[in-house]
Amino acid sequence: MGLQEMMLEKGRAANIAADAMAIVSTKVKNEALNKMADALEENSTIILDANKADIDAARKKGVKKSYIDRLMLDEKRIAGMADGLRQAAALPDPVGEEDYGTMRPNGLEIRRIRVPLGVVGIIYEARPNVTSDAAGLCIKSGNAVILRGGSEAINSNKAIIGLLQEAAYASGIPEGAIQLVEVTDREAVQVMLRMNQYLDVIIPRGGAGLIKTVVENSSVPVIETGTGVCHTFVDESADISMAVNIAVNAKTSRPSVCNAMETLLVHKAAAREFLPRLAAVMKDKECELRGCQRSREIVPDMLMASEEDWSTEYGDLILSVKVVDDVNEAIAHINRYNTGHSEAIVTNSLKNARIFQRRVNAAAVYINASTRFTDGCEFGFGAEIGISTQKLHARGPMGLTALTSTKYLIDGDGQIR
Amino acid sequence: MGLQEMMLEKGRAANIAADAMAIVSTKVKNEALNKMADALEENSTIILDANKADIDAARKKGVKKSYIDRLMLDEKRIAGMADGLRQAAALPDPVGEEDYGTMRPNGLEIRRIRVPLGVVGIIYEARPNVTSDAAGLCIKSGNAVILRGGSEAINSNKAIIGLLQEAAYASGIPEGAIQLVEVTDREAVQVMLRMNQYLDVIIPRGGAGLIKTVVENSSVPVIETGTGVCHTFVDESADISMAVNIAVNAKTSRPSVCNAMETLLVHKAAAREFLPRLAAVMKDKECELRGCQRSREIVPDMLMASEEDWSTEYGDLILSVKVVDDVNEAIAHINRYNTGHSEAIVTNSLKNARIFQRRVNAAAVYINASTRFTDGCEFGFGAEIGISTQKLHARGPMGLTALTSTKYLIDGDGQIR
Repeated sequence: MGLQEMMLEKGRAANIAADAMAIVSTKVKNEALNKMADALEENSTIILDANKADIDAARKKGVKKSYIDRLMLDEKRIAGMADGLRQAAALPDPVGEEDYGTMRPNGLEIRRIRVPLGVVGIIYEARPNVTSDAAGLCIKSGNAVILRGGSEAINSNKAIIGLLQEAAYASGIPEGAIQLVEVTDREAVQVMLRMNQYLDVIIPRGGAGLIKTVVENSSVPVIETGTGVCHTFVDESADISMAVNIAVNAKTSRPSVCNAMETLLVHKAAAREFLPRLAAVMKDKECELRGCQRSREIVPDMLMASEEDWSTEYGDLILSVKVVDDVNEAIAHINRYNTGHSEAIVTNSLKNARIFQRRVNAAAVYINASTRFTDGCEFGFGAEIGISTQKLHARGPMGLTALTSTKYLIDGDGQIR
Repeated sequence: MGLQEMMLEKGRAANIAADAMAIVSTKVKNEALNKMADALEENSTIILDANKADIDAARKKGVKKSYIDRLMLDEKRIAGMADGLRQAAALPDPVGEEDYGTMRPNGLEIRRIRVPLGVVGIIYEARPNVTSDAAGLCIKSGNAVILRGGSEAINSNKAIIGLLQEAAYASGIPEGAIQLVEVTDREAVQVMLRMNQYLDVIIPRGGAGLIKTVVENSSVPVIETGTGVCHTFVDESADISMAVNIAVNAKTSRPSVCNAMETLLVHKAAAREFLPRLAAVMKDKECELRGCQRSREIVPDMLMASEEDWSTEYGDLILSVKVVDDVNEAIAHINRYNTGHSEAIVTNSLKNARIFQRRVNAAAVYINASTRFTDGCEFGFGAEIGISTQKLHARGPMGLTALTSTKYLIDGDGQIR
């Protein structure tokens, strides 16, 4: 069977399973998720053996240490994956919720209820925990899922999916609802991106390169996730200690994630007090600063920022710094260079806070808090399938509801138009 | 200026206008919409002269009569366009609505509010009324819009847009918020489909060919609209008179629209009574019937339906007819051949009604009513920008809310993570 035919076969199978999945009861889904969690923990040696093969292969290739770290599983991480599945079981089921209802003058009763999307495609990179997290959230929301992980994690993913499938199907989840693309060929992704007849949505999770490839080549609807060039603007009236705390937290608490700050903007009237204090803490944190000309006049040992810096997601202990004239210049800079993820202002001016929240174009706009809070759990959704940086369908952290669509049910007694 | 550069220029201008549009007050938007309506009516001769040029050119090309009908404007149709704009003014403004709010344990206050999508691209065909309808709904929902109509209507569209722009900009709508692509070259569409940096969504409105081209080639998110292979299933327990009424209405009241029925399915136990009665009325209505073997045994003068008929949107007085064994076969047929638009069951069985509504995969699923009701006004939304047949973002008739996204506003007092 050729690659194309094999992929279409998976699509067909997932599609058939999706029809059955849509009416599986919450009880069955929850029981399956708990069994899937148990299966991972009880068979952790199978997963760890497979993961060792992946790690050995990656080491031979000489990949970066941070890459190995993302790929590596241990008992604790497997327990974390199992917990994720149990959390999905504990969340309320969005399927069947009614979010609009009316009776029309002609007597038609119209209800709009939540239904699963159908078949969700997830394309991701090295982290094998995405395999079980994504499968769990798709199953809970009544979807079938086709997972395409990175080639480097293929052994781990096969082991995880094998265990999840066995436990799920034994618990009443329709066979075919969980699929892994086992071919690590890049061509498999290209086929997947054109499978409109079988896939309702593709969610890419990974670096900017992966996301760009998917957005540019997919005819299946895509939800763009996860690139974050996030800003913090320290206004004239900011509490300087609070601003330093927020900036240091936004940059250094976990620099590799998408809600970490990449560029700090500071009002010219606050810069002289704020920047030296920031620079001192950042030096301790071993964070490199790259400043504009005006900021380097205040902290001369900053490197010079280039135009490219303003649109770079470092994902690392590097921060670009720019002095601006006022909140309007800050907003203009952000709307020009940001990726629509998370932006913050530190201020005591109610007026500027309001302007900033209204005019900044992003999924999450903060007053006096760290951008690091943009996260499904922190927002109260219990879990997330990713953070959408586009405006269609879902924006910001996507909980279970983002994995559903709606359907109008109309009841009449013979109405014609 | 080359085509590419000209399109990008429009995109940039629309993008800048969109930032300003997002905070234009409801009052200003409503006043502008009413002035735009007045401008169309007061200058109807300008529009009619331009439309005459389009009609003459189309006649020279020898296009179909139905095509000329779609293209043709008169005082009544211009009044209809003006009414559409006034209706948009009268609708509630979705921008700023809060649809989720919470306070987290750490004291962060999180609100989710509705914001405009940004820049909406509309690609459509011959009907010049789409130009003002779409512009009106985009303006009301705070978006900038780039319109790309069919080359055959270019003179009409230029005249309409010129009047709308003048009235809108004089009423406080930011310049650049309403743009028409005046180049009728097909290449302009290809450029538009790749303008991710300036366009937030593209909505194609027109025939299956246009929609396919857009879906397959766009890297900008697309909302698929309007193809409808709609079914009516007459169940064993149906009230036969009601079933005939509903079927005749669904097929013949306006055969060219997307919510018209294309295939009728009938339970084998109801076929012998139902089909001859249906055939008699359809004969009077001059509607051609194409039947499966079993239906032709009951009504022998039906033509034989081919496999292709089951997936054809005739848009005309043609109906395919199939006898099925039960509700399950009806559901399987529908889920195989439909386009996810509107489906109906005529039944007295509560059990079958429930199974049908739960298992049929479509935007709107009717019990005992005509599929012709799938429409923004009929559903209580006041107006619609199209009917989405996909599951992402919006499904079914799209009112003003479908032209918005959301944004999280988070207020803190120094929270870090």
